[in-house]
Amino acid sequence: MTDVHELSQSQCEALLRAGVTGRVALSTPDGPHIVPVNYSVVDGSVIIRTSPYGVLGTYGREGVLAFEIDGFDHERQRGWSVVARGRVEAIHDPEEVEHVKRVWEPRPWASGARTLFLRLHCGELSGRQLGSGWDPVHNAPVRRVV
Amino acid sequence: MTDVHELSQSQCEALLRAGVTGRVALSTPDGPHIVPVNYSVVDGSVIIRTSPYGVLGTYGREGVLAFEIDGFDHERQRGWSVVARGRVEAIHDPEEVEHVKRVWEPRPWASGARTLFLRLHCGELSGRQLGSGWDPVHNAPVRRVV
Repeated sequence: MTDVHELSQSQCEALLRAGVTGRVALSTPDGPHIVPVNYSVVDGSVIIRTSPYGVLGTYGREGVLAFEIDGFDHERQRGWSVVARGRVEAIHDPEEVEHVKRVWEPRPWASGARTLFLRLHCGELSGRQLGSGWDPVHNAPVRRVV
Repeated sequence: MTDVHELSQSQCEALLRAGVTGRVALSTPDGPHIVPVNYSVVDGSVIIRTSPYGVLGTYGREGVLAFEIDGFDHERQRGWSVVARGRVEAIHDPEEVEHVKRVWEPRPWASGARTLFLRLHCGELSGRQLGSGWDPVHNAPVRRVV
């Protein structure tokens, strides 16, 4: 068995800033859904760009979302995960959209009309590390200077 | 922009069988949660082992769950994801638990009393591939002979 450690808030924030892809969980009338997304962190919030017509764009514009990123190294049996939960809002104001784009425009790989920006306020932020003696922040899959 | 392709059912099943870690989305009274888990595939169902006292063990024993696995290659801008959704049930019968353990016992890295087995019936199974000209099944992070 590998031991588990809680990550600090600053470690969680650093891992969030370093990432590019994550997964969003949302509740819908027919139960929970999970959607892989590209994201960025702007002014401390997770910004997700999605299609206005998909399940996330339809049911995830308001209320509460959960967002997760992780990294696992199966050979070394170590890993980390960070979960952010909080209220979400769609960004409609053109000036706000321009601000988000200026700071960092999420560039979803997938084609399609991903014209909806969602801002997740990370009211709850927690993370865990499996295995000790290493630093998840310096082993993140993608490093980005923020 | 990278193009998107739907994965076939057999590709989705092969990727599910090849994986070790995924994420579960569930609806709870205070909104959606997302929980990283170890899992295995037994008799066509996703088997998740968890603590009976965590959020998944408390609110995810019945009803509907969504389960996701993915793999992204940021440098090559390609990736894949598979999502399974369906009804979940806790496995209580000792013979069933023994059967699950015989076929493949999920070995969560994290310590703790993960004594609850959940079976997710994959009523909906879908997957997507970003980028063409490569086979996600042969680029899965972990290969396991089933």
